[in-house]
Amino acid sequence: MNSLLLVAHGSRRAASNDEVRELASQLEAHTNGTYGQVASAFLELAEPSIPDGLRQAIHAGAREITVLPYFLSAGRHVVVDIPGEVDVVRAEYPNVDITLVNYLGASAGIVELLATLAGQG
Amino acid sequence: MNSLLLVAHGSRRAASNDEVRELASQLEAHTNGTYGQVASAFLELAEPSIPDGLRQAIHAGAREITVLPYFLSAGRHVVVDIPGEVDVVRAEYPNVDITLVNYLGASAGIVELLATLAGQG
Repeated sequence: MNSLLLVAHGSRRAASNDEVRELASQLEAHTNGTYGQVASAFLELAEPSIPDGLRQAIHAGAREITVLPYFLSAGRHVVVDIPGEVDVVRAEYPNVDITLVNYLGASAGIVELLATLAGQG
Repeated sequence: MNSLLLVAHGSRRAASNDEVRELASQLEAHTNGTYGQVASAFLELAEPSIPDGLRQAIHAGAREITVLPYFLSAGRHVVVDIPGEVDVVRAEYPNVDITLVNYLGASAGIVELLATLAGQG
């Protein structure tokens, strides 16, 4: 089974964390069966943590997991912290294939999305 | 003249702020003359501030300005701080039409962008 884990920073505001969880649900609907599971995890301030999110996916049967950072810039969290948390679980489960893809802000499509938003003003 | 101001949080990392400035340049190219000027401003930790960014656009001749928050969630910055900074300049220049549009994370297109990123893993 393959799994997609949307990873966000996490906030003290419960509503922000719920936005991320809702986005994971929308992503599951949008990808329409491409992934056996789409879930979310948080770097800090919310649950589950990234290692716990990965472990939950593995316990649910995932053997290939894609980790997608919901971040806008390549700061320390994206460059150091998230890879570090992923590596913890890679060491625990060497037979599970965990792929860390590029962060949202690196997506070429961001420009078009911003242009659309601006035009709705 | 109309102007588009991309507003980001700002970072201690100069490279992150430069990513935002570069994104504003890409947005100017993408919108291809729709706006007389596309610039960026920062809530904190980088220059120009949001009021200064607005004032610079006005001094350059802008009479309609669209403010676009480059943020992923509707936290305090999006809900309180950015509208407050915009209101400061609205009070200074009542004849300039400043429109604050929705933040990036509220865009319906985010889901598709994430699905594309995940698929590139």
